[in-house]
Amino acid sequence: MEQAEIGLIGLGVMGSNLALNIAEKGNRIAVFNRTPARTGEFYEEAGSLKDNIVPCETIEDFVAAIRPPRPIIIMIKAGAPVDEQMALLEPHLQQNDIMIDAGNANFRDTMRRFDALKDSGLTFIGMGVSGGEEGARHGPSIMVGGTEASWKRVEKVLTSIAAQYHGEPCVAWLGENGAGHFVKTIHNGIEYADMQMIAEIYGILRDGLKMDAAEIAAVFAGWNRGRLNSYLIEITAKVLEAADPIGGRPIVDMILDKAGQKGTGKWSVIEAQNMGVPATAIEAAVAARSISALKDEREAAEKVLGLPAVPPLAVSDKAAFIKDLENALLAAKIGAYAQGFAVMAAASREFGWSLPMPTIAKIWRAGCIIRSQFLDEITTAFTRDPHVANLIVTPAFAAMVRETDGALRRVVSTAVLGGLPVPALAAALGYFDSYRRGRGTANIIQAQRDFFGAHGFDRIDGADSHHGPWGSGLGTGAA
Amino acid sequence: MEQAEIGLIGLGVMGSNLALNIAEKGNRIAVFNRTPARTGEFYEEAGSLKDNIVPCETIEDFVAAIRPPRPIIIMIKAGAPVDEQMALLEPHLQQNDIMIDAGNANFRDTMRRFDALKDSGLTFIGMGVSGGEEGARHGPSIMVGGTEASWKRVEKVLTSIAAQYHGEPCVAWLGENGAGHFVKTIHNGIEYADMQMIAEIYGILRDGLKMDAAEIAAVFAGWNRGRLNSYLIEITAKVLEAADPIGGRPIVDMILDKAGQKGTGKWSVIEAQNMGVPATAIEAAVAARSISALKDEREAAEKVLGLPAVPPLAVSDKAAFIKDLENALLAAKIGAYAQGFAVMAAASREFGWSLPMPTIAKIWRAGCIIRSQFLDEITTAFTRDPHVANLIVTPAFAAMVRETDGALRRVVSTAVLGGLPVPALAAALGYFDSYRRGRGTANIIQAQRDFFGAHGFDRIDGADSHHGPWGSGLGTGAA
Repeated sequence: MEQAEIGLIGLGVMGSNLALNIAEKGNRIAVFNRTPARTGEFYEEAGSLKDNIVPCETIEDFVAAIRPPRPIIIMIKAGAPVDEQMALLEPHLQQNDIMIDAGNANFRDTMRRFDALKDSGLTFIGMGVSGGEEGARHGPSIMVGGTEASWKRVEKVLTSIAAQYHGEPCVAWLGENGAGHFVKTIHNGIEYADMQMIAEIYGILRDGLKMDAAEIAAVFAGWNRGRLNSYLIEITAKVLEAADPIGGRPIVDMILDKAGQKGTGKWSVIEAQNMGVPATAIEAAVAARSISALKDEREAAEKVLGLPAVPPLAVSDKAAFIKDLENALLAAKIGAYAQGFAVMAAASREFGWSLPMPTIAKIWRAGCIIRSQFLDEITTAFTRDPHVANLIVTPAFAAMVRETDGALRRVVSTAVLGGLPVPALAAALGYFDSYRRGRGTANIIQAQRDFFGAHGFDRIDGADSHHGPWGSGLGTGAA
Repeated sequence: MEQAEIGLIGLGVMGSNLALNIAEKGNRIAVFNRTPARTGEFYEEAGSLKDNIVPCETIEDFVAAIRPPRPIIIMIKAGAPVDEQMALLEPHLQQNDIMIDAGNANFRDTMRRFDALKDSGLTFIGMGVSGGEEGARHGPSIMVGGTEASWKRVEKVLTSIAAQYHGEPCVAWLGENGAGHFVKTIHNGIEYADMQMIAEIYGILRDGLKMDAAEIAAVFAGWNRGRLNSYLIEITAKVLEAADPIGGRPIVDMILDKAGQKGTGKWSVIEAQNMGVPATAIEAAVAARSISALKDEREAAEKVLGLPAVPPLAVSDKAAFIKDLENALLAAKIGAYAQGFAVMAAASREFGWSLPMPTIAKIWRAGCIIRSQFLDEITTAFTRDPHVANLIVTPAFAAMVRETDGALRRVVSTAVLGGLPVPALAAALGYFDSYRRGRGTANIIQAQRDFFGAHGFDRIDGADSHHGPWGSGLGTGAA
């Protein structure tokens, strides 16, 4: 029997869909699941794809079914289960075989696993897969980290299953060890910001302009035909249009305002902090989810404090304001993406990855949750200037910022005066306003630090004098 | 010869000052330094305090000079040097002796060190000391973590050297293992926010109202006589008044706007993230320092983007606006402190510390960098209701928020329209506006997550239906 091109362990929803995708694209795949009953079930359901699937009941059969060097995708719950699965698999493998973790791993675990296999003759790929269940089935965005040789072995299969953007596959090798999972983490951090910014705009429309779900749906549907065209804007319109099967009201009005999170947003923020890179729009988005989870506290706080005592939203020309909201969302989105790419640039230096920014933007254009036209514009900007310090100083994005930041100012100002929370929009604006200002206000902070802690400072004239004339005040940190 | 009550290793500036403080308060102290020459020098400089100081040249003499069980303060560079010093010291110690790390440790290191000594018969205290060099010399705020028995052994000495607030010593035992260093970390996180908010207000006065340093100094000096009375406001006025010895211009105008940071701000944010507690004002402050450090990038960005194209600040009544700035700073400060205390409450649960919130507020009233009248008000609020979910729902602070949040809205709105960055002020406002709103906007986020990832949601009517009617759209994460 012809050997399989690749193997896959873990036939949960994501694993099954990925396996079906692989088989459908003409690749022979061996599959294995801890509970063999599931393997049989999966095989039976595979229908016409059965010919390309080799269901295996034992790990020995599974490994034997794959053409060496064997690429084996592990698609199971992230964390300790991956280490356990790897330990079980390892004794059956041979020189140059490749274990591929396609789960939602913390890239630091990926780095550890990669290093642990270094002298074993085996190798490891950490592979970020975005696009949800349906992405896995019909074309995800795939971010690969590992040795270049191991990438070469899987390139053909992965290219065949990835999403395509106008014929270009959304998969790439991004660097050694944790590069793929790191980039996936930042993808998700940006996704958090994108979603939170949409939620803030939705809040202004709902609570400020008192529009109902159908009216708001129409606004988002309209935006999806313009520069904001993207998967997330598209589905925002769709969810706002949907009726509740129980009772028939708009389903969004029946959904509890308590959002969950799974770790990648948090990891983005922690790694940005570790490297000292500002990622305030992403942070605001992660924090907003945390605040949303405090539903009981919020209800209690509203009882004690009341909603802000403010006049109704100061909007005289509703159509113009909605146009402002569209531009504000675009501006804020630029801020969030600029932060995400800046975090990746820093990580690339920190971990020695040489992350290819134009390629990352390219493979996010389709397949993944944040896919959009906008990412094509980022691709162009980074292709022209791959080593630019920040997205917002590329000519195209600088022009967009100058064009739209006025709208963002008006929207943030209006929302703030109207008592509506816009933490992520405000964070993006604060980022622009801090980043584009050559002379900031940290001089006062340096003066304070020198006063109480003798930390010293540099001078604008470069003079070699690093403490203030505080005299006996110097270091009076005491009462 | 009478044995010393306590020992201290590390005669750098902080260690020397702490040792002199201890001696001055009538406690006999043995001191040791890696380079013995420094020990002699320190002793010679101690003047009339010599009688209470036992300078030791060898570790054996040092240990022998201290009354068992021996408390030994280690005041050296944080990190690996502490582990090395502990390893050198350990063989010389006996049952119940106490190693005390008084440096700027990450509390996770403190937890590890505490655990490592668990079965050794020795014990470990992690002690946060705030107040800078002069605080160490004349009265710091001291945050102690360790076993209660080890605290009892050092309570008298530490009480004698701590700062006092109207006769009450600013030192307390806060819990086991890492409790003291954790609380010190959050103290510093709040300090970052306090300083950044002052810097933002300073920026509005300087760049928005075009006031010079002397005029701004007068504003802060005035505020220091009101509700903002605090060490940081006091020294802000002082540094603004100070003239540059070279050239005579205000020194703040000669200081480079590039602020350093030492880790505690970052750790605060990372731990808040780890526990899922919103700490957006602190995050904004840490990010602002990071942006300040990108001086070259900022100058380049200003060249490309220009400063925001906005009209001059819309301020008709300057005095009223300055009153708004005062109230805005107070409101924002409440937000930052509420976040810091919420992070500590979560950590207390996470690490099993039972952190005493009223006590923490109490020992921050004097000696430390954030000392203020304001902390006395927090002490009162937490004493009345030590288990309240959030500072801002205590009656006193709820009233203050209702009184001042209007000013914060006007200031953020005005700054934002005027192109001036106010990330920390805006973050504090966003926190209030999110936290006091029973019905938020995370319902749209949950709808999106269910649409693309089948994550499920809860309903406001509690019905047992957790997915939307997306039909074939469900999970269309694919292109």
